[in-house]
Amino acid sequence: MQNLGALEAIDLCVRHDIGAIGLWRDKVAQAGLAATAAAARAGGLHVSSLCRGGFFTHADAARRAAAAADNRAAVLEAAALGAGALILVAGGLVPGSKDLPLARRMIGDAVADLVPFAEQAGVRLGIEALHPMFCADRCAISRLGEAVELADQFPADVVGVVVDTYHVWWDAQLPADIGRAAGRIVGYQLCDWVLPLPQDVLLGRGHLGDGYIDLPAITAMVLATGYAGFAEVEIFSQEIWAAPADETVTIVKSRFADLAGAAAER
Amino acid sequence: MQNLGALEAIDLCVRHDIGAIGLWRDKVAQAGLAATAAAARAGGLHVSSLCRGGFFTHADAARRAAAAADNRAAVLEAAALGAGALILVAGGLVPGSKDLPLARRMIGDAVADLVPFAEQAGVRLGIEALHPMFCADRCAISRLGEAVELADQFPADVVGVVVDTYHVWWDAQLPADIGRAAGRIVGYQLCDWVLPLPQDVLLGRGHLGDGYIDLPAITAMVLATGYAGFAEVEIFSQEIWAAPADETVTIVKSRFADLAGAAAER
Repeated sequence: MQNLGALEAIDLCVRHDIGAIGLWRDKVAQAGLAATAAAARAGGLHVSSLCRGGFFTHADAARRAAAAADNRAAVLEAAALGAGALILVAGGLVPGSKDLPLARRMIGDAVADLVPFAEQAGVRLGIEALHPMFCADRCAISRLGEAVELADQFPADVVGVVVDTYHVWWDAQLPADIGRAAGRIVGYQLCDWVLPLPQDVLLGRGHLGDGYIDLPAITAMVLATGYAGFAEVEIFSQEIWAAPADETVTIVKSRFADLAGAAAER
Repeated sequence: MQNLGALEAIDLCVRHDIGAIGLWRDKVAQAGLAATAAAARAGGLHVSSLCRGGFFTHADAARRAAAAADNRAAVLEAAALGAGALILVAGGLVPGSKDLPLARRMIGDAVADLVPFAEQAGVRLGIEALHPMFCADRCAISRLGEAVELADQFPADVVGVVVDTYHVWWDAQLPADIGRAAGRIVGYQLCDWVLPLPQDVLLGRGHLGDGYIDLPAITAMVLATGYAGFAEVEIFSQEIWAAPADETVTIVKSRFADLAGAAAER
């Protein structure tokens, strides 16, 4: 439903009795921050997360400073929206460099720099591991375990992790890493892994149940940590975005109800 | 150089003073096993590996038995070629199932079943971790560490691991896992991660140095384990396959020499 503006998406959720929405910064900016916050409040809708801060990896100090400033702006937007978390997508390799440890150190330093500001603003940061196929260009944090290790360096009420099934489902260490994330999970995002991957692998996601991920198993693991927050269904797909929004919401709600039932049986 | 037959590829290597070749079973079958083995021997060319056995994950016993029989045939072919290893690509999820632990148990059982036969034939098995983007449909062994843990259950002279830079470069645990693989590395394959990924992600690889992987760093890690085997440059790419083979070999040799120099400096 990428074609919807923030206010239309909020209206859609309210009409369909959905309790929370994850918002994207560009959409919020288009609709206006105050107007978006007011609309969510008026509809009784929680903002489960704001997407996204991050992209910390830059070769020169000026760009790193610009990224830091943009992240502080994102924190303030998350605070204004009362968002449950500001999601951080860390950034990939430093341009011109193939040094992954350098990228990971830069990410750690940037998060450390942002933490006091987020704490002051009362905003929780959610570090999201992205699938290893995005390691070079989007996110050098490739496994949930890495996100947990980074988050563990900071107070749990300021820095947590986001579990996104699409990015982490394949990982043999996932059950152990979700266990380690207990108390740190600030967001749980769901979609399915469908094949073949499309030309743009960013847009290859499917409705819950249409792909290969054992979503009930992962959901049960997340719930077993005591996670009591929202679940966000986040489907990047040109095809699904092109479908009528009310139809898509109906499918999402139905599939989610099936999943919740199956997860409860685990 | 997918368009070359096995005998043409052997001739190409001999003409270009390349000491070893990794062969694929379908090409060997087309040229004839005995003829291929004889041509390699006559040219003084080592067969560094045979690709590939594996694909162990099947829902019914008859298909698992057929896979086991095919793997024993592959072992005999590897023996006839004097191949340094038979490379195993394990297979993805069991058809009709989303149970990754089940797939991984099935893979472990199938390797255990194959080991005595391989030992008898004097063939080393090389378990290859494939990039997590292939987890659903090709290989549920997604990290080098998983391959090492599986190989460690068997004698080192029968079961080892293959390190392929394309599949494992992104992994923060890679340095530690390569260290754990010491004495178990039976193959080292190189190519580069280039972006954007193509429509068929199997064919998205690049010449050494054209992408994002820190190949000198990984090569130095592999060498530090005492690995003294061959390095195979394995580039799946429609574009490179379409280029003249002699031209491609010249690029491969030049890039490899650069890499070896850079790795030696680490």
